[in-house]
Amino acid sequence: MMVSDAVIRRLPTYYRYLTMLHNDGVLHISSFDLGKTMGLTPSQVRQDINCFGGAGRQGFGYSVISLKDHIAKIMGIKNKQNMVIIGSGNIGSAISGYVGFSESGFNVSALFDSDEKKLDKTINGVPVLPISELPDFLMSNDISIAVIACPESVAQKMANTVMEYGIKGIWNFAPIDIRTPESVVCVNVSLLETLQQLSFRLNNLKK
Amino acid sequence: MMVSDAVIRRLPTYYRYLTMLHNDGVLHISSFDLGKTMGLTPSQVRQDINCFGGAGRQGFGYSVISLKDHIAKIMGIKNKQNMVIIGSGNIGSAISGYVGFSESGFNVSALFDSDEKKLDKTINGVPVLPISELPDFLMSNDISIAVIACPESVAQKMANTVMEYGIKGIWNFAPIDIRTPESVVCVNVSLLETLQQLSFRLNNLKK
Repeated sequence: MMVSDAVIRRLPTYYRYLTMLHNDGVLHISSFDLGKTMGLTPSQVRQDINCFGGAGRQGFGYSVISLKDHIAKIMGIKNKQNMVIIGSGNIGSAISGYVGFSESGFNVSALFDSDEKKLDKTINGVPVLPISELPDFLMSNDISIAVIACPESVAQKMANTVMEYGIKGIWNFAPIDIRTPESVVCVNVSLLETLQQLSFRLNNLKK
Repeated sequence: MMVSDAVIRRLPTYYRYLTMLHNDGVLHISSFDLGKTMGLTPSQVRQDINCFGGAGRQGFGYSVISLKDHIAKIMGIKNKQNMVIIGSGNIGSAISGYVGFSESGFNVSALFDSDEKKLDKTINGVPVLPISELPDFLMSNDISIAVIACPESVAQKMANTVMEYGIKGIWNFAPIDIRTPESVVCVNVSLLETLQQLSFRLNNLKK
Protein backbone atom coordinates (compact mmCIF):
# COMPACT_ATOMS: atom_id res chain seq x y z
CA MET A 1 0.00 0.00 0.00
CA MET A 2 1.36 3.42 -0.96
CA VAL A 3 0.33 6.05 1.55
CA SER A 4 1.84 9.53 1.39
CA ASP A 5 3.83 10.92 4.31
CA ALA A 6 1.22 13.61 4.92
CA VAL A 7 -1.52 11.00 5.27
CA ILE A 8 0.68 8.84 7.54
CA ARG A 9 1.14 11.87 9.76
CA ARG A 10 -2.63 12.36 9.92
CA LEU A 11 -3.52 8.69 10.54
CA PRO A 12 -3.00 8.84 14.32
CA THR A 13 -5.19 11.95 14.45
CA TYR A 14 -7.97 10.16 12.55
CA TYR A 15 -7.57 7.28 14.96
CA ARG A 16 -7.77 9.57 17.98
CA TYR A 17 -10.91 11.37 16.76
CA LEU A 18 -12.62 8.14 15.72
CA THR A 19 -11.89 6.64 19.13
CA MET A 20 -13.43 9.70 20.81
CA LEU A 21 -16.50 9.47 18.55
CA HIS A 22 -16.82 5.74 19.21
CA ASN A 23 -16.60 6.31 22.97
CA ASP A 24 -19.31 8.96 22.62
CA GLY A 25 -21.57 6.40 20.94
CA VAL A 26 -21.44 7.93 17.45
CA LEU A 27 -22.12 5.28 14.77
CA HIS A 28 -21.62 7.16 11.50
CA ILE A 29 -19.82 10.34 10.51
CA SER A 30 -19.73 12.31 7.28
CA SER A 31 -16.53 13.54 5.65
CA PHE A 32 -17.87 17.04 6.32
CA ASP A 33 -18.19 16.55 10.10
CA LEU A 34 -14.96 14.60 10.42
CA GLY A 35 -13.15 17.28 8.43
CA LYS A 36 -14.62 20.05 10.57
CA THR A 37 -13.31 18.40 13.76
CA MET A 38 -9.87 17.87 12.27
CA GLY A 39 -9.52 21.14 10.37
CA LEU A 40 -9.59 19.50 6.93
CA THR A 41 -11.89 19.96 3.94
CA PRO A 42 -14.45 17.18 3.26
CA SER A 43 -12.70 16.38 -0.02
CA GLN A 44 -9.34 16.04 1.76
CA VAL A 45 -10.93 13.64 4.24
CA ARG A 46 -12.43 11.55 1.41
CA GLN A 47 -9.09 11.50 -0.43
CA ASP A 48 -7.20 10.50 2.74
CA ILE A 49 -9.60 7.70 3.61
CA ASN A 50 -9.66 6.49 0.04
CA CYS A 51 -5.87 6.51 0.04
CA PHE A 52 -5.59 4.12 2.98
CA GLY A 53 -8.40 1.93 1.77
CA GLY A 54 -11.39 2.88 3.95
CA ALA A 55 -14.87 2.99 2.45
CA GLY A 56 -17.97 5.06 3.14
CA ARG A 57 -21.54 4.89 1.84
CA GLN A 58 -23.11 7.79 -0.04
CA GLY A 59 -25.65 9.41 2.28
CA PHE A 60 -24.56 7.43 5.35
CA GLY A 61 -20.97 8.56 5.72
CA TYR A 62 -18.36 6.35 7.34
CA SER A 63 -19.01 3.73 9.96
CA VAL A 64 -17.02 5.00 12.97
CA ILE A 65 -16.16 1.54 14.28
CA SER A 66 -15.17 0.07 10.89
CA LEU A 67 -12.99 3.03 10.01
CA LYS A 68 -11.38 3.03 13.46
CA ASP A 69 -10.67 -0.71 13.27
CA HIS A 70 -9.36 -0.40 9.73
CA ILE A 71 -6.92 2.32 10.78
CA ALA A 72 -5.89 0.34 13.87
CA LYS A 73 -5.13 -2.62 11.63
CA ILE A 74 -2.98 -0.76 9.09
CA MET A 75 -1.22 1.12 11.90
CA GLY A 76 -0.43 -2.12 13.68
CA ILE A 77 -2.19 -0.87 16.81
CA LYS A 78 -3.91 -4.19 17.44
CA ASN A 79 -0.62 -5.97 18.04
CA LYS A 80 1.05 -5.19 21.34
CA GLN A 81 4.53 -3.83 20.69
CA ASN A 82 7.35 -3.99 23.19
CA MET A 83 9.97 -1.27 23.40
CA VAL A 84 13.28 -0.78 25.15
CA ILE A 85 14.63 2.65 26.05
CA ILE A 86 18.36 3.32 25.81
CA GLY A 87 19.21 5.98 28.39
CA SER A 88 17.37 6.58 31.66
CA GLY A 89 17.92 10.36 31.87
CA ASN A 90 15.19 12.99 31.68
CA ILE A 91 13.85 12.01 28.28
CA GLY A 92 14.09 8.26 28.79
CA SER A 93 12.31 8.56 32.14
CA ALA A 94 9.59 10.75 30.65
CA ILE A 95 8.97 8.31 27.80
CA SER A 96 8.82 5.38 30.22
CA GLY A 97 6.06 7.15 32.15
CA TYR A 98 4.11 8.63 29.26
CA VAL A 99 0.43 8.01 29.90
CA GLY A 100 -1.33 6.77 26.81
CA PHE A 101 1.33 4.49 25.34
CA SER A 102 0.07 1.38 27.12
CA GLU A 103 -3.56 2.11 26.24
CA SER A 104 -2.46 2.21 22.62
CA GLY A 105 -0.68 -1.14 22.75
CA PHE A 106 2.87 0.03 23.43
CA ASN A 107 4.73 -1.47 26.36
CA VAL A 108 8.10 -0.38 27.75
CA SER A 109 9.95 -3.58 28.72
CA ALA A 110 13.15 -2.07 30.11
CA LEU A 111 15.37 0.99 30.34
CA PHE A 112 19.12 0.58 29.80
CA ASP A 113 21.86 2.78 31.18
CA SER A 114 25.64 2.73 31.39
CA ASP A 115 25.68 4.69 34.64
CA GLU A 116 26.01 2.25 37.54
CA LYS A 117 24.37 4.71 39.93
CA LYS A 118 21.13 4.46 37.94
CA LEU A 119 20.90 0.67 37.93
CA ASP A 120 19.03 -1.66 40.28
CA LYS A 121 15.96 0.50 40.44
CA THR A 122 12.75 1.02 38.52
CA ILE A 123 11.47 4.20 36.88
CA ASN A 124 7.70 4.41 36.50
CA GLY A 125 7.65 0.68 37.20
CA VAL A 126 10.16 -0.13 34.44
CA PRO A 127 13.46 -1.81 35.46
CA VAL A 128 16.75 -0.03 34.67
CA LEU A 129 19.28 -2.59 33.39
CA PRO A 130 23.00 -2.31 32.60
CA ILE A 131 23.74 -1.58 28.96
CA SER A 132 25.95 -4.70 28.87
CA GLU A 133 22.77 -6.81 29.16
CA LEU A 134 21.11 -5.18 26.12
CA PRO A 135 22.13 -7.83 23.51
CA ASP A 136 20.93 -10.73 25.69
CA PHE A 137 17.71 -8.90 26.48
CA LEU A 138 16.98 -8.25 22.81
CA MET A 139 17.66 -11.87 21.91
CA SER A 140 15.46 -13.33 24.63
CA ASN A 141 12.50 -10.91 24.45
CA ASP A 142 10.09 -9.93 21.70
CA ILE A 143 11.12 -6.28 21.27
CA SER A 144 10.20 -4.36 18.11
CA ILE A 145 11.11 -0.75 18.92
CA ALA A 146 14.18 0.83 20.53
CA VAL A 147 13.97 4.36 21.88
CA ILE A 148 17.29 6.21 21.69
CA ALA A 149 17.39 8.61 24.63
CA CYS A 150 21.11 8.58 25.34
CA PRO A 151 23.68 11.34 24.75
CA GLU A 152 24.33 12.36 21.14
CA SER A 153 27.91 11.04 21.31
CA VAL A 154 26.80 7.40 21.64
CA ALA A 155 23.41 7.55 19.88
CA GLN A 156 24.52 6.12 16.51
CA LYS A 157 26.58 3.42 18.24
CA MET A 158 23.58 2.35 20.33
CA ALA A 159 21.37 2.37 17.23
CA ASN A 160 23.89 0.14 15.46
CA THR A 161 23.83 -2.27 18.41
CA VAL A 162 20.05 -2.62 18.52
CA MET A 163 19.91 -3.04 14.72
CA GLU A 164 22.55 -5.74 14.94
CA TYR A 165 20.22 -7.62 17.29
CA GLY A 166 17.28 -7.41 14.94
CA ILE A 167 15.43 -4.20 15.92
CA LYS A 168 13.63 -2.72 12.90
CA GLY A 169 12.07 0.34 14.55
CA ILE A 170 14.08 3.20 16.06
CA TRP A 171 12.57 6.21 17.78
CA ASN A 172 15.38 8.68 18.24
CA PHE A 173 15.39 11.59 20.70
CA ALA A 174 19.13 12.34 20.50
CA PRO A 175 19.80 15.58 18.60
CA ILE A 176 21.43 13.89 15.61
CA ASP A 177 19.91 12.13 12.62
CA ILE A 178 20.46 8.41 13.13
CA ARG A 179 21.51 6.67 9.91
CA THR A 180 19.71 3.42 9.22
CA PRO A 181 19.50 1.05 6.24
CA GLU A 182 16.24 0.93 4.25
CA SER A 183 15.16 -2.20 6.06
CA VAL A 184 14.88 -0.24 9.33
CA VAL A 185 12.35 2.47 10.16
CA CYS A 186 13.75 5.43 12.07
CA VAL A 187 11.80 8.44 13.31
CA ASN A 188 14.01 11.27 14.57
CA VAL A 189 12.28 13.54 17.09
CA SER A 190 14.31 16.68 17.60
CA LEU A 191 12.79 18.67 20.44
CA LEU A 192 15.17 21.55 19.81
CA GLU A 193 14.21 21.71 16.14
CA THR A 194 10.50 21.71 17.02
CA LEU A 195 11.12 24.56 19.45
CA GLN A 196 13.10 26.44 16.81
CA GLN A 197 10.22 26.08 14.35
CA LEU A 198 7.94 27.58 16.98
CA SER A 199 10.43 30.37 17.55
CA PHE A 200 10.64 31.04 13.79
CA ARG A 201 6.88 31.31 13.48
CA LEU A 202 6.74 33.53 16.56
CA ASN A 203 9.47 35.75 15.14
CA ASN A 204 7.59 36.10 11.87
CA LEU A 205 4.07 36.65 13.24
CA LYS A 206 2.31 39.49 11.52
CA LYS A 207 2.72 42.35 13.94
CA MET B 1 8.31 36.69 4.05
CA MET B 2 6.39 33.64 2.83
CA VAL B 3 8.22 30.44 3.68
CA SER B 4 6.51 27.08 3.19
CA ASP B 5 5.92 24.75 6.14
CA ALA B 6 8.28 22.16 4.66
CA VAL B 7 11.10 24.72 4.51
CA ILE B 8 10.33 25.95 8.04
CA ARG B 9 10.65 22.36 9.23
CA ARG B 10 14.05 22.08 7.52
CA LEU B 11 15.42 25.44 8.73
CA PRO B 12 16.65 24.12 12.12
CA THR B 13 18.39 21.25 10.31
CA TYR B 14 20.15 23.71 7.98
CA TYR B 15 21.12 25.69 11.05
CA ARG B 16 22.47 22.62 12.83
CA TYR B 17 24.54 21.46 9.85
CA LEU B 18 25.88 24.96 9.15
CA THR B 19 26.88 25.31 12.81
CA MET B 20 28.74 21.99 12.60
CA LEU B 21 30.48 23.05 9.38
CA HIS B 22 31.37 26.41 10.90
CA ASN B 23 32.81 24.72 13.99
CA ASP B 24 34.84 22.47 11.69
CA GLY B 25 36.34 25.55 10.01
CA VAL B 26 34.52 25.15 6.69
CA LEU B 27 34.14 28.52 4.91
CA HIS B 28 32.07 27.69 1.82
CA ILE B 29 29.77 24.87 0.85
CA SER B 30 28.08 23.95 -2.42
CA SER B 31 24.40 23.08 -2.70
CA PHE B 32 25.60 19.64 -3.79
CA ASP B 33 27.60 18.97 -0.60
CA LEU B 34 25.04 20.54 1.71
CA GLY B 35 22.31 18.48 0.03
CA LYS B 36 24.32 15.29 0.36
CA THR B 37 24.74 15.81 4.11
CA MET B 38 21.06 16.58 4.58
CA GLY B 39 19.62 14.01 2.17
CA LEU B 40 18.29 16.63 -0.26
CA THR B 41 18.96 17.23 -3.97
CA PRO B 42 21.18 20.23 -4.86
CA SER B 43 18.22 21.87 -6.60
CA GLN B 44 16.05 21.46 -3.49
CA VAL B 45 18.78 23.09 -1.39
CA ARG B 46 19.03 26.02 -3.84
CA GLN B 47 15.24 26.42 -3.86
CA ASP B 48 15.05 26.30 -0.04
CA ILE B 49 17.81 28.84 0.44
CA ASN B 50 16.38 31.08 -2.23
CA CYS B 51 12.99 30.84 -0.54
CA PHE B 52 14.28 32.18 2.79
CA GLY B 53 16.43 34.84 1.17
CA GLY B 54 19.95 33.43 1.35
CA ALA B 55 22.38 34.00 -1.53
CA GLY B 56 25.28 32.00 -2.93
CA ARG B 57 27.87 32.75 -5.62
CA GLN B 58 28.19 30.66 -8.77
CA GLY B 59 31.33 28.54 -8.44
CA PHE B 60 31.92 29.45 -4.78
CA GLY B 61 28.79 28.06 -3.16
CA TYR B 62 27.41 29.52 0.02
CA SER B 63 29.38 31.26 2.73
CA VAL B 64 28.82 29.02 5.77
CA ILE B 65 28.96 31.86 8.31
CA SER B 66 26.68 34.23 6.34
CA LEU B 67 24.10 31.56 5.69
CA LYS B 68 24.21 30.41 9.34
CA ASP B 69 23.80 33.98 10.61
CA HIS B 70 21.02 34.69 8.13
CA ILE B 71 19.08 31.63 9.31
CA ALA B 72 19.72 32.51 12.97
CA LYS B 73 18.29 35.95 12.30
CA ILE B 74 15.10 34.84 10.59
CA MET B 75 14.63 32.09 13.18
CA GLY B 76 14.96 34.56 16.02
CA ILE B 77 17.81 32.53 17.50
CA LYS B 78 19.89 35.62 18.28
CA ASN B 79 17.36 36.88 20.81
CA LYS B 80 17.23 35.06 24.10
CA GLN B 81 13.73 33.70 24.70
CA ASN B 82 12.30 32.90 28.10
CA MET B 83 9.84 30.07 28.60
CA VAL B 84 7.61 28.83 31.40
CA ILE B 85 6.53 25.20 31.70
CA ILE B 86 3.03 24.38 32.94
CA GLY B 87 3.22 21.00 34.67
CA SER B 88 6.25 19.54 36.45
CA GLY B 89 5.56 15.87 35.72
CA ASN B 90 7.72 13.61 33.55
CA ILE B 91 7.50 15.68 30.39
CA GLY B 92 7.79 19.07 32.08
CA SER B 93 10.84 17.90 34.03
CA ALA B 94 12.45 16.47 30.90
CA ILE B 95 11.93 19.70 28.97
CA SER B 96 13.37 21.75 31.86
CA GLY B 97 16.55 19.67 31.71
CA TYR B 98 16.91 19.29 27.95
CA VAL B 99 20.51 19.93 27.07
CA GLY B 100 20.82 22.17 24.05
CA PHE B 101 17.99 24.62 24.68
CA SER B 102 20.12 27.09 26.57
CA GLU B 103 22.94 26.93 24.01
CA SER B 104 20.35 27.87 21.40
CA GLY B 105 19.07 30.89 23.31
CA PHE B 106 16.11 29.32 25.11
CA ASN B 107 15.85 29.70 28.85
CA VAL B 108 13.36 28.01 31.18
CA SER B 109 12.36 30.62 33.79
CA ALA B 110 10.00 28.54 35.92
CA LEU B 111 7.88 25.42 36.16
CA PHE B 112 4.30 25.71 37.48
CA ASP B 113 2.30 23.00 39.19
CA SER B 114 -1.00 22.72 41.04
CA ASP B 115 0.25 19.83 43.20
CA GLU B 116 1.42 21.24 46.53
CA LYS B 117 3.76 18.30 47.08
CA LYS B 118 5.79 19.37 44.05
CA LEU B 119 6.29 22.99 45.11
CA ASP B 120 9.18 24.60 46.99
CA LYS B 121 11.83 22.71 45.12
CA THR B 122 13.81 23.05 41.91
CA ILE B 123 14.00 20.62 38.99
CA ASN B 124 17.19 20.82 36.94
CA GLY B 125 17.82 24.14 38.66
CA VAL B 126 14.43 25.59 37.67
CA PRO B 127 12.05 26.63 40.49
CA VAL B 128 8.62 24.95 40.75
CA LEU B 129 6.00 27.59 41.56
CA PRO B 130 2.30 27.31 42.43
CA ILE B 131 -0.02 27.68 39.47
CA SER B 132 -1.80 30.53 41.31
CA GLU B 133 1.32 32.66 40.80
CA LEU B 134 1.36 32.18 37.02
CA PRO B 135 -0.50 35.40 36.06
CA ASP B 136 1.76 37.57 38.26
CA PHE B 137 4.83 35.81 36.94
CA LEU B 138 3.83 36.38 33.32
CA MET B 139 3.11 40.04 33.99
CA SER B 140 6.38 40.75 35.73
CA ASN B 141 8.77 38.71 33.54
CA ASP B 142 9.64 38.80 29.87
CA ILE B 143 8.25 35.39 28.83
CA SER B 144 7.55 34.60 25.18
CA ILE B 145 6.80 30.86 25.17
CA ALA B 146 4.64 28.66 27.39
CA VAL B 147 5.16 24.91 27.37
CA ILE B 148 1.96 22.97 28.11
CA ALA B 149 2.99 19.78 29.91
CA CYS B 150 -0.03 19.33 32.16
CA PRO B 151 -2.80 16.71 31.95
CA GLU B 152 -5.03 16.79 28.87
CA SER B 153 -8.05 17.74 30.99
CA VAL B 154 -6.65 21.17 31.89
CA ALA B 155 -4.41 21.82 28.87
CA GLN B 156 -6.77 24.12 26.94
CA LYS B 157 -7.65 26.02 30.13
CA MET B 158 -3.96 26.59 30.90
CA ALA B 159 -3.35 27.69 27.30
CA ASN B 160 -6.22 30.17 27.59
CA THR B 161 -4.69 31.56 30.80
CA VAL B 162 -1.24 32.13 29.32
CA MET B 163 -2.74 33.71 26.19
CA GLU B 164 -4.81 36.02 28.37
CA TYR B 165 -1.55 37.24 29.90
CA GLY B 166 0.05 37.96 26.54
CA ILE B 167 1.87 34.75 25.59
CA LYS B 168 2.05 34.38 21.79
CA GLY B 169 3.96 31.09 21.56
CA ILE B 170 2.60 27.78 22.86
CA TRP B 171 4.47 24.50 22.74
CA ASN B 172 1.96 21.81 23.60
CA PHE B 173 2.83 18.29 24.80
CA ALA B 174 -0.66 17.38 26.05
CA PRO B 175 -2.32 14.83 23.76
CA ILE B 176 -4.97 17.22 22.45
CA ASP B 177 -4.79 19.92 19.79
CA ILE B 178 -4.78 23.26 21.60
CA ARG B 179 -7.03 25.82 19.87
CA THR B 180 -5.47 29.25 19.47
CA PRO B 181 -6.41 32.42 17.60
CA GLU B 182 -4.37 33.37 14.51
CA SER B 183 -2.37 35.88 16.53
CA VAL B 184 -0.83 33.04 18.57
CA VAL B 185 1.59 30.39 17.34
CA CYS B 186 0.96 26.90 18.66
CA VAL B 187 3.02 23.80 17.93
CA ASN B 188 1.40 20.57 19.11
CA VAL B 189 3.88 17.76 19.79
CA SER B 190 2.07 14.48 20.16
CA LEU B 191 4.53 11.83 21.28
CA LEU B 192 1.92 9.11 20.93
CA GLU B 193 1.14 10.14 17.36
CA THR B 194 4.84 10.14 16.46
CA LEU B 195 5.18 6.65 17.93
CA GLN B 196 2.10 5.52 16.01
CA GLN B 197 3.62 6.83 12.76
CA LEU B 198 6.72 4.78 13.51
CA SER B 199 4.54 1.77 14.24
CA PHE B 200 2.63 2.26 10.97
CA ARG B 201 5.85 2.39 8.96
CA LEU B 202 7.17 -0.65 10.81
CA ASN B 203 3.97 -2.53 10.14
CA ASN B 204 4.18 -1.72 6.43
CA LEU B 205 7.89 -2.39 5.88
CA LYS B 206 8.51 -4.40 2.75
CA LYS B 207 9.03 -7.92 4.08
